[in-house]
Amino acid sequence: MIRKISHIGIAVKDLNSAIEMYRKLGLEVEGTEIVESQNVRVAFIPVGDVRIELLEATMEDSTIAKFIEKKGEGIHHIALNTDDLESDLQSAETQGITLIDSKPRKGAHQTKIAFLHPKSTNGVLLELCQDKG
Amino acid sequence: MIRKISHIGIAVKDLNSAIEMYRKLGLEVEGTEIVESQNVRVAFIPVGDVRIELLEATMEDSTIAKFIEKKGEGIHHIALNTDDLESDLQSAETQGITLIDSKPRKGAHQTKIAFLHPKSTNGVLLELCQDKG
Repeated sequence: MIRKISHIGIAVKDLNSAIEMYRKLGLEVEGTEIVESQNVRVAFIPVGDVRIELLEATMEDSTIAKFIEKKGEGIHHIALNTDDLESDLQSAETQGITLIDSKPRKGAHQTKIAFLHPKSTNGVLLELCQDKG
Repeated sequence: MIRKISHIGIAVKDLNSAIEMYRKLGLEVEGTEIVESQNVRVAFIPVGDVRIELLEATMEDSTIAKFIEKKGEGIHHIALNTDDLESDLQSAETQGITLIDSKPRKGAHQTKIAFLHPKSTNGVLLELCQDKG
């Protein structure tokens, strides 16, 4: 069951200048991390109990680099926190929602994640994620 | 000061089918509203303490209709809740962030709102909003 919004992923060209922009709004970065498997550098900005995740490509062929090339900087995905990813994923598929990941895969911070296809979710790339334990 | 994310606005072609998609994920609409001044019909879906706002154009020349024509369905804006809109707006401008609304204007539910220009916020249309009272 979906309980809350985990984070909003935003594709940016330059992580440091994006961090600086959010700092101007009074929002501070909690940490940064390189996710090798996705070829991105990520900065986490807590806003209430949701995080803004700024995503900068570390390689030219990373998903984020391609996204920016095609659409420019902007919101890349919304992640919804669930307490039972397998069940929600199966339920979504049964009801005709197209999945990008038919099985959960490993995300950052030992989470399990899966993406739904924007063609069946009104153009929004939705991630379902489940925290460890 | 920004305290939390208020809502995420998503531009959709057909409100009823979008509501149905979120229902398939186990999320329920709290209410719908027509905002005459913006020529939109809005459905509010609470997810934790953030709302997803589905926005459907009621007129061909509404901002949402133009957005969809240009970019397709998808995330339109992120609204950040502040307890002092005037002060945050002035602070943002002083620090070189371009404003769409230099003064707060009236939003739905007796809120005060103002938009920042995506050209200075990494391609993301950010709304600052302050609840009544």
